[in-house]
Amino acid sequence: MAPTGRISAAVALVLAFLATSPAARAGDERPVSLPTSFRSWVHVRSMVVTDADAGMLGFHDVYANELALETLRSKVKGAAYPDGAQFVVSIFEVKQEKGTIVAGPKLRDVVQRKDRKAVATGGWRYGSFDAAGKPIAKDAASCHACHSQASDRDHVFTEFAQ
Amino acid sequence: MAPTGRISAAVALVLAFLATSPAARAGDERPVSLPTSFRSWVHVRSMVVTDADAGMLGFHDVYANELALETLRSKVKGAAYPDGAQFVVSIFEVKQEKGTIVAGPKLRDVVQRKDRKAVATGGWRYGSFDAAGKPIAKDAASCHACHSQASDRDHVFTEFAQ
Repeated sequence: MAPTGRISAAVALVLAFLATSPAARAGDERPVSLPTSFRSWVHVRSMVVTDADAGMLGFHDVYANELALETLRSKVKGAAYPDGAQFVVSIFEVKQEKGTIVAGPKLRDVVQRKDRKAVATGGWRYGSFDAAGKPIAKDAASCHACHSQASDRDHVFTEFAQ
Repeated sequence: MAPTGRISAAVALVLAFLATSPAARAGDERPVSLPTSFRSWVHVRSMVVTDADAGMLGFHDVYANELALETLRSKVKGAAYPDGAQFVVSIFEVKQEKGTIVAGPKLRDVVQRKDRKAVATGGWRYGSFDAAGKPIAKDAASCHACHSQASDRDHVFTEFAQ
């Protein structure tokens, strides 16, 4: 290659790098979005976290997309989820009234999306969104630290309610 | 009509009556079945009934078919549901563990199905099924008596969790 050819190639490489979004360059930090259709996904289960120290205090409704459901419902112990598998947990205030516990106003939605490239966070990306759907800054490492307790189930806590 | 013709017609009428299932003949008492696919219906909301006297003690997951969802999600106050609209509520034992309240083993599934012919029970039919899906004898009148508290919403208690 002539010197000018090498320079052109180097310039093209720099331009290609600059054209890549900062999020994509950052690797594991690429943000997840809140799927618009998750409320019509299959409901996995619900639960109430009553311990204020647990960090996830609230009434939880868990939803899964088709890719996640296939693995979740398979009886293969510890099966790894395929890329694209997603869970959304809607978290609401806990309201106690007249002998019932119900979900109050929404606090946030959290997303767990499988991406084997996210090695630092166990092959999953995490995102949090306020009640209006706006991303909340949250360290995926802290999500991963907790989900590591379920590393024998590919970092997924939930189980399907038959 | 000749006498033999009249007798034939009468016999045909009796045979037609006998061919009709007893359930269909009973009118309002026609039983509802447990829809096989309800676990892939859209999840409406969950709640926990903690009052043992309430009669519906348990962790409730509510699902709706498409016909029911359309009316439930419409903003028309008191809109009547169309025939065929259905809700299923899966009721589980309430388990408290480590700062959480979760659904334990299933107690039963209950069905509320719109049928305007069921006049005596507010235009809805009701059914209850044990954890194995076997019908439980239950008086639809008692279901209706309670659901009448929501007569301004066509006897539907639940609201969609956004």
